[in-house]
Amino acid sequence: MRAVVMRNQQLVVDSIPDPTPAPGQIVVKTLACGICGSDLHALKFADRMVDTARRSGLPAFMDPARDIVMGHEFCAEVVDSVVGGLAAGTRVCSMPIAFDASGIKTIGYSNDLPGGYGEYMVLNEMLLLPVPNGLATEVAALTEPMAVGWHAVNKANFTTNDVPLVVGCGPVGLAVIAALKVKGAAPIIAADYSPKRRELALQLGADVVIDPGVGSPYASWAAHAVPEGCDPNSAMTLMGMGPQPRPGLIFECVGVPGVLQQVVVGAPRHARIVVVGVCMESDTIEPAIGINKELNIQFVLGYTPQEFAETLGLLAEGKIDALPMITGKVGIDAIAGAFADLAHPDRHAKILAEPWR
Amino acid sequence: MRAVVMRNQQLVVDSIPDPTPAPGQIVVKTLACGICGSDLHALKFADRMVDTARRSGLPAFMDPARDIVMGHEFCAEVVDSVVGGLAAGTRVCSMPIAFDASGIKTIGYSNDLPGGYGEYMVLNEMLLLPVPNGLATEVAALTEPMAVGWHAVNKANFTTNDVPLVVGCGPVGLAVIAALKVKGAAPIIAADYSPKRRELALQLGADVVIDPGVGSPYASWAAHAVPEGCDPNSAMTLMGMGPQPRPGLIFECVGVPGVLQQVVVGAPRHARIVVVGVCMESDTIEPAIGINKELNIQFVLGYTPQEFAETLGLLAEGKIDALPMITGKVGIDAIAGAFADLAHPDRHAKILAEPWR
Repeated sequence: MRAVVMRNQQLVVDSIPDPTPAPGQIVVKTLACGICGSDLHALKFADRMVDTARRSGLPAFMDPARDIVMGHEFCAEVVDSVVGGLAAGTRVCSMPIAFDASGIKTIGYSNDLPGGYGEYMVLNEMLLLPVPNGLATEVAALTEPMAVGWHAVNKANFTTNDVPLVVGCGPVGLAVIAALKVKGAAPIIAADYSPKRRELALQLGADVVIDPGVGSPYASWAAHAVPEGCDPNSAMTLMGMGPQPRPGLIFECVGVPGVLQQVVVGAPRHARIVVVGVCMESDTIEPAIGINKELNIQFVLGYTPQEFAETLGLLAEGKIDALPMITGKVGIDAIAGAFADLAHPDRHAKILAEPWR
Repeated sequence: MRAVVMRNQQLVVDSIPDPTPAPGQIVVKTLACGICGSDLHALKFADRMVDTARRSGLPAFMDPARDIVMGHEFCAEVVDSVVGGLAAGTRVCSMPIAFDASGIKTIGYSNDLPGGYGEYMVLNEMLLLPVPNGLATEVAALTEPMAVGWHAVNKANFTTNDVPLVVGCGPVGLAVIAALKVKGAAPIIAADYSPKRRELALQLGADVVIDPGVGSPYASWAAHAVPEGCDPNSAMTLMGMGPQPRPGLIFECVGVPGVLQQVVVGAPRHARIVVVGVCMESDTIEPAIGINKELNIQFVLGYTPQEFAETLGLLAEGKIDALPMITGKVGIDAIAGAFADLAHPDRHAKILAEPWR
């Protein structure tokens, strides 16, 4: 089959063997696969990604010195029906993991199993979720990134008294905004330097968007979360007397060094900070400010199987309208170019690869 | 009265005016006042402390260019009885704050009100807690530092399934250990390079102590928290299958740059990290490791009025035996020397000033 292969820190289109299903697995045809920021990162810094995972105690998952077919945000189609299983042609989503007798593989970051930048994949039958309700394939392919936002909001123990601030409106921030909207958050405040991304934030459910180059996201937060007549920094308020600000819940969806410290400095007292953006470099904060404000920082990763399935349901029921996030679609020969295009945040949010084209 | 005054980054013994009570306040005689690590820090870096507090949105509380009488961990005695109030000679504790028409002052870090390194203080009647149950004055003076540990454990949402690891066994770490013991934690694992502090950790309630120069505190944690036959980093365990490790709850009680990153690297997956040690400098962490492990970092500060009162009760009822923490007592002329002595962790934990001597 044809696939885009990551080889020597380059993306090359090549012919590779079709993947072979192990017992419990079936072959699927990739219909659409989103390009993720982690893939952009892996292309440049796969060694660092592997090293960080190893030092985090995660099992070994890929060797960047060997070929890898990336792509972990996919919707696919069953190729051959299996007795008692799904009919050929059934569209399915799956968490990007697979397992056989040799263990668990991370689809899209594996030397053994190809991800969605190839024409075919193998998936485990027991993880397949048929696409319900006639949901468009392109939107079903967004299940994975949207599940990241759903999980982040769940881990935040969100309540409707919280006033959320979403810092960064790339795909991760947009997924968080959509999840917050489903949970009934109001108002949702979102910040991004890009006009296009602020527009997308509004479409996904933000109530207030702010350009950090023009105004402070934290001042905007305070304008919506601090009741009239309340000085949040007055001794009276700190002692719990008089009207209190609504709780601050800040989602760091940028993942670039320096942003976490900006959030720590900007956050209101007692804020919960949820770190969803993946910063792969060392980062510097001032713990004393965290202490003075009694901040809480929750780092989040991925989603549970239940959250993944719930997210597909939210998309299929129209509770999340993720369609505006799709800003481009490319065939197999244009995937490498799309990686470069994604460096322009004002042009693109999510580009889908369609390897069958 | 005589007092130790912080002036130009020096501690000098001087005669200063007796403090004058505002309405609602009374004069008390300082019986005992602990020397806190924050005081050692303030002596060197008061400007930075004030600047960090300002950038944290806290109200202004002291001007290091003017005289300050430190000391905020005290037990005192009512000097003059007030009609309807406590009798002269009654021993009392109070949170180190006071208020009058001009606002709230932080006793021990104020230019207006002296702290416990002077012979007399003024306190607000409504904040006074009489020392109950014949509790020794020297132990009552430990209410404030022990309340810090009590608060930290409360903020951690401790449950008896957690296996706590206390990193650093200075007064803050010891207070955390004592609080964990009251809450029923078992086993409590504690780490410190100092043999003296490890001995104190055992006396305050630690079940296992470890010298990080000899063995890994995190390996020791795993030996107690990971059930036999469970590989915490196996894909099976990560997927939630088979026996799971008990939850990790790590208290960072050192407050020196680099320790938080060590904790992040050493922590088990899903650990909650409670930062109690105050690091006043910038510090560097790897957020990607926090993400891979889905760590939670809770910064904590101080205590609530209820927690302060509860702590005095725990000491008075003998549920916490904090006496071993007291490793020295000094009169007013030896306070400055005691600051220097506290730099030797193997000699001292808590030194009490007795300004009446």
